[in-house]
Amino acid sequence: MPYQALSDRGVTHPDVRRANLGLVLRHLRDHGPRSRASLAADLRMTRSTVSTLVSELIERCLLTDGPLVQSAVGRPGTAVELDGHAVCGIGAEINVNHVSTMALDLRGRVVGDRKLALDARSMDSTIVLGHLADLVRETVDRLDEEGVQTVGLTVGVAGLYDRTRDVLTHGPNLGWYDVPVGAILRQELGGSFPIVVDNEGNLAAAAEVIPGDAGRQDMLVLHGEIGVGGGIVSGGRLLRGSHGFAGEFGHMIVEPGGRQCACGRQGCWETVSGLRALLELAADPDDPIRNPTMALDDRLAEINRRAGLGDARTLQALEDVATWVGTGAAILVNALNPATIVLTGYYAAVGHHMRTAIEQALRAGVLAPDAGGTQVELSVLGFSAAVRGGATAALESVFADPTRVPRRSASAPV
Amino acid sequence: MPYQALSDRGVTHPDVRRANLGLVLRHLRDHGPRSRASLAADLRMTRSTVSTLVSELIERCLLTDGPLVQSAVGRPGTAVELDGHAVCGIGAEINVNHVSTMALDLRGRVVGDRKLALDARSMDSTIVLGHLADLVRETVDRLDEEGVQTVGLTVGVAGLYDRTRDVLTHGPNLGWYDVPVGAILRQELGGSFPIVVDNEGNLAAAAEVIPGDAGRQDMLVLHGEIGVGGGIVSGGRLLRGSHGFAGEFGHMIVEPGGRQCACGRQGCWETVSGLRALLELAADPDDPIRNPTMALDDRLAEINRRAGLGDARTLQALEDVATWVGTGAAILVNALNPATIVLTGYYAAVGHHMRTAIEQALRAGVLAPDAGGTQVELSVLGFSAAVRGGATAALESVFADPTRVPRRSASAPV
Repeated sequence: MPYQALSDRGVTHPDVRRANLGLVLRHLRDHGPRSRASLAADLRMTRSTVSTLVSELIERCLLTDGPLVQSAVGRPGTAVELDGHAVCGIGAEINVNHVSTMALDLRGRVVGDRKLALDARSMDSTIVLGHLADLVRETVDRLDEEGVQTVGLTVGVAGLYDRTRDVLTHGPNLGWYDVPVGAILRQELGGSFPIVVDNEGNLAAAAEVIPGDAGRQDMLVLHGEIGVGGGIVSGGRLLRGSHGFAGEFGHMIVEPGGRQCACGRQGCWETVSGLRALLELAADPDDPIRNPTMALDDRLAEINRRAGLGDARTLQALEDVATWVGTGAAILVNALNPATIVLTGYYAAVGHHMRTAIEQALRAGVLAPDAGGTQVELSVLGFSAAVRGGATAALESVFADPTRVPRRSASAPV
Repeated sequence: MPYQALSDRGVTHPDVRRANLGLVLRHLRDHGPRSRASLAADLRMTRSTVSTLVSELIERCLLTDGPLVQSAVGRPGTAVELDGHAVCGIGAEINVNHVSTMALDLRGRVVGDRKLALDARSMDSTIVLGHLADLVRETVDRLDEEGVQTVGLTVGVAGLYDRTRDVLTHGPNLGWYDVPVGAILRQELGGSFPIVVDNEGNLAAAAEVIPGDAGRQDMLVLHGEIGVGGGIVSGGRLLRGSHGFAGEFGHMIVEPGGRQCACGRQGCWETVSGLRALLELAADPDDPIRNPTMALDDRLAEINRRAGLGDARTLQALEDVATWVGTGAAILVNALNPATIVLTGYYAAVGHHMRTAIEQALRAGVLAPDAGGTQVELSVLGFSAAVRGGATAALESVFADPTRVPRRSASAPV
């Protein structure tokens, strides 16, 4: 039983009511639709308390009555379930090659998905953020016309984000330093919903946690783009570190005296395992797959096509980079012994051609036999992991406090 | 309020009584001596429940009445505090250069401390374990004569310990593979107390957690001996990994194609940051500091003496090794962003000569400015960290279930 009701003597103090509304909403998210009687049993509340809470959540358009179900206790009852129609959370991402947004409804369904390829390094940060604000504004306006309220925006950015000062302190791949991303976006977008900025690797990692899946409670998420980042999940929780700077895997020095990194040092892992390393090995400078203004999905699809046709240069490039991915991952597996490594970003897109070499390097580099039992998985979220994690994070505010969404309809009598 | 009473209606069911006895004992350990009235207020129990529990703990010789204190609630009362006289936990360590034991009483005071220098690599594992069993037996017998009951033995061993099979699967520095350390020691020592075996780095890391010290809740403990290991503490908890193999920092490959490691690979961190690297840089083969049968403390004291006199070779060796310590630590700090790095083992003994170079390499290797705020500290436990952690772990059984210790005396009326 992960949650406990704060009070079972009816809804009295507003804080208690808010907490109990959230409890019901999260229980339905994590355990699926069920009757009021089941909810009462699960949450150890009285039937009348549950009915009052459910009615209020229906008035706020966060729950809806579903089909009749037979529960373990009492007569068949109407199942209540999350209502996806009233609110959405938006996740966004600022990356070297693109800006993108994704809107998720309360049930986690995608209700908006925008992406704009650009070459962020050649542009001023305010221009890039302006493009992102345009994508967000279009999504918010369209959903607003459909009666869907945006409850929050969480933006993932490639680099070190100081959440206390709300500033991107170091974004070496973007070439951004000390950019107040949150403040700029709030100025662009106004104050109708909260805007939070976080490291994109953190958001991508959070998106990979699957409630109830043991292999996804202790995992290492490796997020490959031009830079390489990700997150460490331990016991189902993202490990952020004492100042929020955990997960900067791309800057582990794996080859002392090696290639020059955008961060100014040499031999960082991302210089050999990032997308640029793959592209440079796989193609000449004038090859379209190296054109940063082309959509990355298309460029990666072309790499997959060439690999599928057995193109020797492409296959060798994938193997070389995969070996470095596994070599660096082995360092982390020696330290962390995760149940699972989840590969996201470009690794997920072309990972089926990299996996064998990654696993081989992992077994070679980890002290414990058979890589300590760590399994390698490709994310099914791919490049959308960070925006999906952002949208999920934005929706958390509603699960924490459902009264943030106004009452709109009178509920049917219960 | 970290603990909650399972029942406040007097001591009824044996499980509830056991749990509540443990609650009182742990509260006094973590928050210090206090009156029965304060305990009742802190733990939200009735005064009579607390008095009954305290009386029983006094009968089991786990608590004792202390001085009169003024509490926040009610009249001055007698403070109760942990009684150190009845029980002890023993920690032990099997290392390349020595076997050692430490006994701690319930208050955490050292009541026994034995060490035997030996060259484990040149001996059969059963011989080494026989020497360790002798040390344990001597300690147990002496304490038994003083009326102190040994409640458990936790043994730290250098290598991968599979706790499910109770076997040291890989101990490359000891040259031990698939040794059932637990079973051998149980045969040597009989069954009068439980014997648990764990990785020595894990135990050393657990010993560094200081309740209430924020810097010691998110930390990286680096334990340097011939091998290099340690542990990751996140939110006050040791991160063990999915199969218990976390913390094998010494086998992170930091120098591809580098020096041969005992594990069979090349360029592992411990080949450049372990004790052997320091000794080989600092002295010729016939130098007494390289004699493995000499007590390690004495050899390290000699290194400190030479460094203090400004001996160029010694200082250069310390700086070279320290730079590698910092370079490897930077890899982990990029991934984990801990509040603190605690250096234990030989790092603690000679660390005041290494610290500047370690911090410099750390700042150079970490993406976040100023090493992400991570502070470097030298353990005050030194080589005793692992045995101390083992003894503390052995005592946990009493804090979890105080009824494991028999009643001996009638308590004074309360």
